[in-house]
Amino acid sequence: MPRPNDRAASALRELSFTRGYTRTAPGSVLVRMGRTTVLCTCCVEPKVPDFLVGKGKGWLTAEYGMLPGSTATRKPRDKGGKVDGRGVEIQRLIGRSLRAVVNLKALGERTLWIDCDVLEADGGTRTASITGAFVAAVDGLTAIKEQLTVPVSAILTDSLAAVSVGIIDGEPLLDLEYVEDVAADVDMNLVMTGTGKLIEVQGTGEEATFSRAELNALLDLGEAGGRAITAAQKAALGAAWPF
Amino acid sequence: MPRPNDRAASALRELSFTRGYTRTAPGSVLVRMGRTTVLCTCCVEPKVPDFLVGKGKGWLTAEYGMLPGSTATRKPRDKGGKVDGRGVEIQRLIGRSLRAVVNLKALGERTLWIDCDVLEADGGTRTASITGAFVAAVDGLTAIKEQLTVPVSAILTDSLAAVSVGIIDGEPLLDLEYVEDVAADVDMNLVMTGTGKLIEVQGTGEEATFSRAELNALLDLGEAGGRAITAAQKAALGAAWPF
Amino acid sequence: MPRPNDRAASALRELSFTRGYTRTAPGSVLVRMGRTTVLCTCCVEPKVPDFLVGKGKGWLTAEYGMLPGSTATRKPRDKGGKVDGRGVEIQRLIGRSLRAVVNLKALGERTLWIDCDVLEADGGTRTASITGAFVAAVDGLTAIKEQLTVPVSAILTDSLAAVSVGIIDGEPLLDLEYVEDVAADVDMNLVMTGTGKLIEVQGTGEEATFSRAELNALLDLGEAGGRAITAAQKAALGAAWPF
Amino acid sequence: MPRPNDRAASALRELSFTRGYTRTAPGSVLVRMGRTTVLCTCCVEPKVPDFLVGKGKGWLTAEYGMLPGSTATRKPRDKGGKVDGRGVEIQRLIGRSLRAVVNLKALGERTLWIDCDVLEADGGTRTASITGAFVAAVDGLTAIKEQLTVPVSAILTDSLAAVSVGIIDGEPLLDLEYVEDVAADVDMNLVMTGTGKLIEVQGTGEEATFSRAELNALLDLGEAGGRAITAAQKAALGAAWPF
Amino acid sequence: MPRPNDRAASALRELSFTRGYTRTAPGSVLVRMGRTTVLCTCCVEPKVPDFLVGKGKGWLTAEYGMLPGSTATRKPRDKGGKVDGRGVEIQRLIGRSLRAVVNLKALGERTLWIDCDVLEADGGTRTASITGAFVAAVDGLTAIKEQLTVPVSAILTDSLAAVSVGIIDGEPLLDLEYVEDVAADVDMNLVMTGTGKLIEVQGTGEEATFSRAELNALLDLGEAGGRAITAAQKAALGAAWPF
Amino acid sequence: MPRPNDRAASALRELSFTRGYTRTAPGSVLVRMGRTTVLCTCCVEPKVPDFLVGKGKGWLTAEYGMLPGSTATRKPRDKGGKVDGRGVEIQRLIGRSLRAVVNLKALGERTLWIDCDVLEADGGTRTASITGAFVAAVDGLTAIKEQLTVPVSAILTDSLAAVSVGIIDGEPLLDLEYVEDVAADVDMNLVMTGTGKLIEVQGTGEEATFSRAELNALLDLGEAGGRAITAAQKAALGAAWPF
Repeated sequence: MPRPNDRAASALRELSFTRGYTRTAPGSVLVRMGRTTVLCTCCVEPKVPDFLVGKGKGWLTAEYGMLPGSTATRKPRDKGGKVDGRGVEIQRLIGRSLRAVVNLKALGERTLWIDCDVLEADGGTRTASITGAFVAAVDGLTAIKEQLTVPVSAILTDSLAAVSVGIIDGEPLLDLEYVEDVAADVDMNLVMTGTGKLIEVQGTGEEATFSRAELNALLDLGEAGGRAITAAQKAALGAAWPF
Repeated sequence: MPRPNDRAASALRELSFTRGYTRTAPGSVLVRMGRTTVLCTCCVEPKVPDFLVGKGKGWLTAEYGMLPGSTATRKPRDKGGKVDGRGVEIQRLIGRSLRAVVNLKALGERTLWIDCDVLEADGGTRTASITGAFVAAVDGLTAIKEQLTVPVSAILTDSLAAVSVGIIDGEPLLDLEYVEDVAADVDMNLVMTGTGKLIEVQGTGEEATFSRAELNALLDLGEAGGRAITAAQKAALGAAWPF
Repeated sequence: MPRPNDRAASALRELSFTRGYTRTAPGSVLVRMGRTTVLCTCCVEPKVPDFLVGKGKGWLTAEYGMLPGSTATRKPRDKGGKVDGRGVEIQRLIGRSLRAVVNLKALGERTLWIDCDVLEADGGTRTASITGAFVAAVDGLTAIKEQLTVPVSAILTDSLAAVSVGIIDGEPLLDLEYVEDVAADVDMNLVMTGTGKLIEVQGTGEEATFSRAELNALLDLGEAGGRAITAAQKAALGAAWPF
Repeated sequence: MPRPNDRAASALRELSFTRGYTRTAPGSVLVRMGRTTVLCTCCVEPKVPDFLVGKGKGWLTAEYGMLPGSTATRKPRDKGGKVDGRGVEIQRLIGRSLRAVVNLKALGERTLWIDCDVLEADGGTRTASITGAFVAAVDGLTAIKEQLTVPVSAILTDSLAAVSVGIIDGEPLLDLEYVEDVAADVDMNLVMTGTGKLIEVQGTGEEATFSRAELNALLDLGEAGGRAITAAQKAALGAAWPF
Repeated sequence: MPRPNDRAASALRELSFTRGYTRTAPGSVLVRMGRTTVLCTCCVEPKVPDFLVGKGKGWLTAEYGMLPGSTATRKPRDKGGKVDGRGVEIQRLIGRSLRAVVNLKALGERTLWIDCDVLEADGGTRTASITGAFVAAVDGLTAIKEQLTVPVSAILTDSLAAVSVGIIDGEPLLDLEYVEDVAADVDMNLVMTGTGKLIEVQGTGEEATFSRAELNALLDLGEAGGRAITAAQKAALGAAWPF
Repeated sequence: MPRPNDRAASALRELSFTRGYTRTAPGSVLVRMGRTTVLCTCCVEPKVPDFLVGKGKGWLTAEYGMLPGSTATRKPRDKGGKVDGRGVEIQRLIGRSLRAVVNLKALGERTLWIDCDVLEADGGTRTASITGAFVAAVDGLTAIKEQLTVPVSAILTDSLAAVSVGIIDGEPLLDLEYVEDVAADVDMNLVMTGTGKLIEVQGTGEEATFSRAELNALLDLGEAGGRAITAAQKAALGAAWPF
């Protein structure tokens, strides 16, 4: 079964970053991965959550949402205490991933708010969110560099790229779009740094199982994808690339 | 006091509509009014709320939200039953305004969902939402015209344009941006049809009062603005303009 | 079509104020406008919301509710995060209107809580609420005048009267009761001061539109009604009338 | 210590019932017990909760609320999922008490909604609510007697009276008002029928304990009070008294 | 009708306490009353609620829950603002009962958290909770005795035992299990101290009424049951028994 | 650094299963993994969620909770719409894992409710929950085998074992207890089947990163642990083991 648009198994979809998409947030990046479109903003708040007050370190918190019109069937908004479990899971992943490359001590007593809002969902929204959020974080920190006591490169310890991989009919594929996602037997999200280290590996059999060999094939494919994403981030950030 | 960018008192900000901004929703319009940016989508659901079942008519419901990064100070998401009173008020206004130009009988037993999500807020988000939502509704209905028993022009009875006006230092101004909005003594939102009839007039003294003469000056200014917005909508819709 | 009880188009319903209706709240006024019955209380809290702490000024906040038995079909209570959008809109209107005649600086660091609870609803509950709330605010402030550094007349800058007007079968009518309200094509709520200035003008086409001429006819009728309401408030307050 | 207004230990406060207080609800009774003022309404809904559908019997549900201005310190409204445990406990007591004298089979497949909203609280709001709710239930059922297949007296099996008793400084007192309530060591609420049977006995040591002898003294006092309340209900209902 | 397992009308079910059931909470008691199984824990928090700050006394708060699998039909968890009225009523009873034997002044500025979670429900969960919670409170206070300025026996003024009684077919029965509970015409919960004083008496006619004579028979039965429970608590606590 | 109790790096803690721990739920298993104690119940509901009605297949849903006293610092209950993100994430993992070994077609139109409630938390509660939930599911299905059209072994396609692994000071360790969990640089949860296939791999750098080699070492350790857990489940189930 060929992939949509005859994409190769190991090819990423077209990836673009529009920096400064809005002006209200210090970091504001519209990331597009094929048709998947996410607005990632980074706001800076000059205080920390209660449990960190007076400890001389900062915090990073992430939130993820999908606009109602972002899916083929309209997604109702969360209301009246109803919880979107999938969204909660994703925003925890985004926050954890970014905190892995942020030196919270160097950040000082401030909070980075990362918001990832999906304008159009075509598979891979969580990985596009992480990928775009890193770029927004760079811009957000650069925007306040006058207030920082250290350079941005002392706060961000590495860059961050995320990508999905999966197995359909026995074949490992990189960067699944929505129609592939629903057909996949195994689905894995990989978060890695620009220097090639792993931060999160989340492999799931979708009412299916997988072997160590399949896991390894997926990791190989994902690591290559992560390197390509890192290169695209570096190109998009240009002189703002902190490393 | 000159306006930002030396705008004339009776001039609109630059207004643009990007139709088909996303592909998931049948109607999807990114409206920009100066820096104010709203994604308006129109989804169609083949059923009606309980109170209308079996009555042979449809419904239109509108929701309004602001992304956390859309304001200069990050706006926390609604959570755990907290109510954003201003948002509730706005989404009721959007829904009421659109229903005034929709023939719910002709629509048949389906619901139009209008979602207006603010990506960047620089004043006038409610009026930009209504203005963009009308364009999205046209596109949404056109997308399903095969399923309709009447032409789109039998469902939409008129077009819809909304604009804000206000008084600063005694001078009536059209289409306030954020810095003007906070300085205004009187603030009015006007919703009118393409044929010049009024649908909503909401004038508010902001810890201030106003006279009938001032009210009339604001209405004159707003009606002129409404006509210009109608023209822009017509140009953006081109052949899709239903009248 | 004659009005119920052969009321003239420009006549108010019978209007009464029972001051000191309960003793727990410093201001407590039962206002009756025909059968519409609202208990308006004004409580004083010796502190201000967080965003005003230390700014040397006070705040006024209003809440509006309807008892379950106040409508012909029992109105369920708000529970579990469900939001009554109409109620939210009304309480924002009440608060905004009162703040327009309260000098928050002169009030000092305290909060006036205005509660308007509808015991029986027969049209015009929001305007009756505002009309009654002003009387309750006078009584509430008078009750604590010993604690104030200025006279009540320095805190209240003007009196406040609200009334509804509407168009049925082309005829403008003052002070709609419920059966008229549901039949009206255009519905307008007007809030004005005792000295005749406008504070809020909210005109809405109910799945209909209206012209500038109709708007003007409604404003004329409403302004006359507002003057009659002001006179009734003055009579009810007697020596407590602050101006 | 003498009681306020030199009331005797075994004397009730002045008790009055205003029937038909509002016209929207079929049963609407304003009950005053001294200054404690509760509006009790009885609405009839022509359906039953899910768990009773098709079982040929009806249901009665009660809700209890306090207006914000009903207490000396303003009582915030329930919002956003916050639960007023005391209110929940009281409304369960009201519902249980009324169901004990309602023949749900004879009622048929309909729901009686009893709403007790406190306008002014001066002790004994739960017992005043039950006492007033019975009168409202009689009026509510009488108002729909045409729709019933049996007379009201076949649905209501007995009348219902409730009263509080307590011990202060070792002395049993009937019908505590607020200042007595907070001083009481033991507090008991008694619900009984017009024919003298017990329905609820809720005695509580307020950070204190009590003996069987004290319990018996309280029961004696309460039963006498209940008889007096029954007489007052009978007088208020006049010809509508169903027994 | 004989009772299950031929139990005598005045016999308790088998009662056991497993102290130190878990190690995380300072007091942790698994109480079993027949098949009714409740885990009662007592945690100590070194602060008090806002309304008590600086008053030199402590607080005790209780919460009650049922695990979903504890009932024959799975009990859904509370979610999204839905309130379990019965649970609220029960936890208020537990808290009130315990506070009646705790000297909050002697406790000092700390809060005792009593959690009663039902693992299996077979009638009498509220009385088993109170009975077990007292044992957990003794253990919880003993665990922190080094931090206390007075002995445990100065904080706990008496012990606490609770039991249910009811009438089936005219016969008073002690300690109802579930099948009896649903068959009972009258249901009473009794909370008393180890020295025989009453703290709570809650008798309820379940769509039925009862007489003073029946009430007295239930009280006699319950008091005897309470004495047996006290003995069992004393045996379980051994040297830790504070009196 | 030696492990607590000198446990070997590749040794599991003591693992026990108490089947039939309560009688209300058809499957009820108390699983203990060291001090971590979880009550896992399996209830069967004879209907499916709306999205599956009429599709001839069943569903499995899992919920996870922690009792307030299960952690060293008391864990407040979820209330009023507050969301425990970690709990949401865990219950999604439990549900997904179990669905991977349940043939929903063979189950027929019924829902398996898996509830995992933590009585004591000492690390690894999510893996203990999955491990115990499988045993409860076997018992739950066996209890209703008369109602099933196929044997239990046709519904459960494989057994399920879960374990945590982590890296501390560079050393991979099996089955972390709490003090180890907080010290770990890398933390991984592994869910696998009794026949050795992978279902979930979730590796997370805790503000740290990891290499492919480290990932492989953790997988090796975890797979061995999974095999030991499978053996323990088989022993506990005895003749009920379905394969």
